[in-house]
Amino acid sequence: PDRLGGSDQEDGGSAAVVGGDGASEFGQFTPAAHGPRLGIGMDSCVIPLRHGNLSLVQTTDFFYPLVEDPYMMGRIACANVLSDLYAMGITECDNMLMLLSVSQKMNEKDREQVMPLMIKGFRDAAEEGGTSVTGGQTVVNPWIIVGGVATVVCQPSDFIMPDSAVPGDVLVLTKPLGTQVAVNAHQWLDMPDRWNKIKLVISKDEVEQAYQEAMFNMATLNRTAAALMHKFNAHAATDITGFGILGHAQNLAKQQRNDVAFVIHNLPIIAKMAAISKACGNMFGLLQGTSSETSGGLLICLPREQAARFCSEMKASRHDLSGALGQEGGGGDGQQAWIIGIVEKGSRCARIIDKPRIIEVPYRGSIAGSQEGSNNNNNNNNSSSANSPREIQSPPLA
Amino acid sequence: PDRLGGSDQEDGGSAAVVGGDGASEFGQFTPAAHGPRLGIGMDSCVIPLRHGNLSLVQTTDFFYPLVEDPYMMGRIACANVLSDLYAMGITECDNMLMLLSVSQKMNEKDREQVMPLMIKGFRDAAEEGGTSVTGGQTVVNPWIIVGGVATVVCQPSDFIMPDSAVPGDVLVLTKPLGTQVAVNAHQWLDMPDRWNKIKLVISKDEVEQAYQEAMFNMATLNRTAAALMHKFNAHAATDITGFGILGHAQNLAKQQRNDVAFVIHNLPIIAKMAAISKACGNMFGLLQGTSSETSGGLLICLPREQAARFCSEMKASRHDLSGALGQEGGGGDGQQAWIIGIVEKGSRCARIIDKPRIIEVPYRGSIAGSQEGSNNNNNNNNSSSANSPREIQSPPLA
Repeated sequence: PDRLGGSDQEDGGSAAVVGGDGASEFGQFTPAAHGPRLGIGMDSCVIPLRHGNLSLVQTTDFFYPLVEDPYMMGRIACANVLSDLYAMGITECDNMLMLLSVSQKMNEKDREQVMPLMIKGFRDAAEEGGTSVTGGQTVVNPWIIVGGVATVVCQPSDFIMPDSAVPGDVLVLTKPLGTQVAVNAHQWLDMPDRWNKIKLVISKDEVEQAYQEAMFNMATLNRTAAALMHKFNAHAATDITGFGILGHAQNLAKQQRNDVAFVIHNLPIIAKMAAISKACGNMFGLLQGTSSETSGGLLICLPREQAARFCSEMKASRHDLSGALGQEGGGGDGQQAWIIGIVEKGSRCARIIDKPRIIEVPYRGSIAGSQEGSNNNNNNNNSSSANSPREIQSPPLA
Repeated sequence: PDRLGGSDQEDGGSAAVVGGDGASEFGQFTPAAHGPRLGIGMDSCVIPLRHGNLSLVQTTDFFYPLVEDPYMMGRIACANVLSDLYAMGITECDNMLMLLSVSQKMNEKDREQVMPLMIKGFRDAAEEGGTSVTGGQTVVNPWIIVGGVATVVCQPSDFIMPDSAVPGDVLVLTKPLGTQVAVNAHQWLDMPDRWNKIKLVISKDEVEQAYQEAMFNMATLNRTAAALMHKFNAHAATDITGFGILGHAQNLAKQQRNDVAFVIHNLPIIAKMAAISKACGNMFGLLQGTSSETSGGLLICLPREQAARFCSEMKASRHDLSGALGQEGGGGDGQQAWIIGIVEKGSRCARIIDKPRIIEVPYRGSIAGSQEGSNNNNNNNNSSSANSPREIQSPPLA
């Protein structure tokens, strides 16, 4: 549950925040004084149950469509809801509810085409997550809304409280940044004023590819990462959404029990999105770490000696979505993950170093994408190809 | 989760339906083919857990404000969500999430006044229900939205599956009908065209009182009724919301394991609302049982010999809301409940008899209300005062 990234900020519908983290702009979502102060600052709320040693963990998220493909939008919405569980290392979900609104502006035909696809995308992603949608609610609204509720009952060993980072840990990120920029750039293809601002740094074909890449990433579940958090002894994690990489790193830092600071050295970004952000006068804050993401990756604090293996097992994992979408090369392709920073001794804060290394993440499905990614970034001295194993497997600082 | 009653139907925002019952207008909310077919037709979904003999029961509901008082709207929204648990005889709730949207049309000042009150109302009702709100999400939207998610993990003895009615049972209703009519009539005070249609059957003061009565009823939790369902061996129950008393009675009838039919003889209705409905040419369907209700009462199938005691214990119960709202006479006042029909042998259907007895339920807080309730209903041969103990304590048929 987070502030939304993506196109909703372009049309005035910038979303406000009430976290499962108990924080609200109204300051009213802190648990009642007599209740346990649990769940503060976390991606899901954790409620101790009366039964055995079990806890109820749940989260909700809903927002407005930001991609044009209703099926993919459904998948993204579901991935985004589940991501709050995955950020706590939870790999199972006992139940999902779906929250929907149909737009009153849609005619019957559009409605009958669009809504079933969105629902199917949501349900398919839920199934990929090993769960299913058993209920929900739909209303009519001026805008389309899609979201859900994910709930699981689990034992203490099933989840990892996000509060145990120690100096010497490294920070790993499991999806590239830049989804908001990619979604907006795609909308600008039809807006000459906006397009003129960025046409010198990117072609229309590249915008299309970046958009596909962003959509693919947003629809990818963070479930593999959640499973590997246990295997490699993760100390804390959160998912990257509306506050951008820096905002969520700061939130995570605040919750730590030890005196730590998170320092980000590398920014893996969908190829060309950094250039667009610069061409727009940094209006997105992408290089500052404040650009909203939707259904972003997990930011995980891992023991330094485990991080490289975490990344290589992510890479080796079967990427279910590729198969589901009928794309080539899905099997065994896995997900990229990057070591992007370190955990130092500090005062529970997070920052990005002055000149972070921009890792240009090539578009999948086009070999050209990765070539261009490393050739065309002469305007960025810090950039390097994400294909370099050095980026993936070694800590960012010598 | 139900179709919404109330004012949303006046402004084109009539809400669609996706039940916790697994039914959707898109036909997509039935559980996946490989999953358990649980929760169909019920007010909440029930998911067997991997732990012990426990089940996860949860429900979600959200809608648009239908009363002007934001605090009461928050209470109503919460009561409405919890009601789906109460309908299953569940009295505890482990966690609530709140779903909110702020209207983009509100200025900063309105927003700061309205939203905290609505949140407070929701939280206060949750606290009255013995639970608390630990998270949720807020977005910006053209319309205000308020709703929530209620979740509980419980043992088999904690809930009553709504499928065991037998011929000879009686039907009990725990809140009067007519909330939609009252809310609309109140809006019509400012709409001369509409007001002219009903001014011969009701005074402005009575509209105001009926509106207060409706608001009070909608904000009342069905928790006492849920507890008494266990004590008096209830066989099945549902809560009355968007489909009206007949629609929900039919839904409940369909789920029965035995060959039963529900026959409704009495309609307890907030005083004067039947007259308004008639004056409007039955546009609400109130006397036909199809007028939407919001956060209505429970419709409960009880053994005939237990029903009168159920009603008198309801009446004797302390009505928490009265105290919370600082109203007089709350202590020990309790909630009215009525025996409204019988369970016969039949084909899992429900109907209202040809000339049902209209029980005019007087407005609380005004003794005048109850007097008028019995004096002014000359235009309805079937009406009688709800103060008559005969209505409360004896079965409807000799």
